[in-house]
Amino acid sequence: MEEKVVNAIQDEYPDDFAWCYGCGRLNEEGHHFRTSWQGEQTVTVYTPKPEHMALPGFVYGGIIGSLVDCHGTGSSALALHRKNGHEPGDGVEPPRFVTGSLKVDFLKPTPHGTLIKAVGTVQEIHPKKWKVNVEVFAEDSLCARGEVIAVVMPDTFLKSV
Amino acid sequence: MEEKVVNAIQDEYPDDFAWCYGCGRLNEEGHHFRTSWQGEQTVTVYTPKPEHMALPGFVYGGIIGSLVDCHGTGSSALALHRKNGHEPGDGVEPPRFVTGSLKVDFLKPTPHGTLIKAVGTVQEIHPKKWKVNVEVFAEDSLCARGEVIAVVMPDTFLKSV
Repeated sequence: MEEKVVNAIQDEYPDDFAWCYGCGRLNEEGHHFRTSWQGEQTVTVYTPKPEHMALPGFVYGGIIGSLVDCHGTGSSALALHRKNGHEPGDGVEPPRFVTGSLKVDFLKPTPHGTLIKAVGTVQEIHPKKWKVNVEVFAEDSLCARGEVIAVVMPDTFLKSV
Repeated sequence: MEEKVVNAIQDEYPDDFAWCYGCGRLNEEGHHFRTSWQGEQTVTVYTPKPEHMALPGFVYGGIIGSLVDCHGTGSSALALHRKNGHEPGDGVEPPRFVTGSLKVDFLKPTPHGTLIKAVGTVQEIHPKKWKVNVEVFAEDSLCARGEVIAVVMPDTFLKSV
């Protein structure tokens, strides 16, 4: 399993938008999820902290939901950036998305103590609205399926910063 | 708005099941969500920490998802406990639920710096499967809607502890 994320979209966000508790590189207390292309799919990897448990031995569902959430917005940003002719690292500021809806089906308990990996398939459903189907694996075991509808960040958000 | 949660279902879980990062009273690093009846509905309140932001000024969606998740399992436990003739505080151990699915629609950005409140309506859809419709408010503003399908904790979970 590929475990290293290079050219993450979150590395490209301007500082004003890098504070997300899930994926902001400037949020010292956050999870620092980082999302990149892996072929035609997207990937985010994370190793839950010891306290991120539902019960001892199993990962807390809210952490999986958070991973799916940020994986969805990051994947959508990657996809629209590519549609616009750009890739992380080329110096062009990427678009930013917010989450419209988040859905997670928990298929089986997710074992704690190993890396978990979100793999996404991105689809444009509207120029400003993208759907990301997500599978979450622990080792090679599929533990959850998710779907995120991500929306290009509206001006109201931008103006408020 | 009622802000104090008394007779929370999470206070009744046996120690072995009190480690959830979202709602376990024994998880020192966790959110300590606590869920109780409020009339025929259920309520969980939480004040996000400073770092729980999406952008400065707005709450991170993953925290809202986590609140909805634990509110769903806690509400289901309250409802089945009541169906069985019991209320928190009467000394009888309540049932425990796990999350089958989680869905959150983000209706508007949730302002940071105030208490947020999940209000739930619980419905039995199978003796071991309950549905909780959730509304999340910041002050009096409805910011998100959620739905949780919660399932009575299977023996596989119990045996693993």
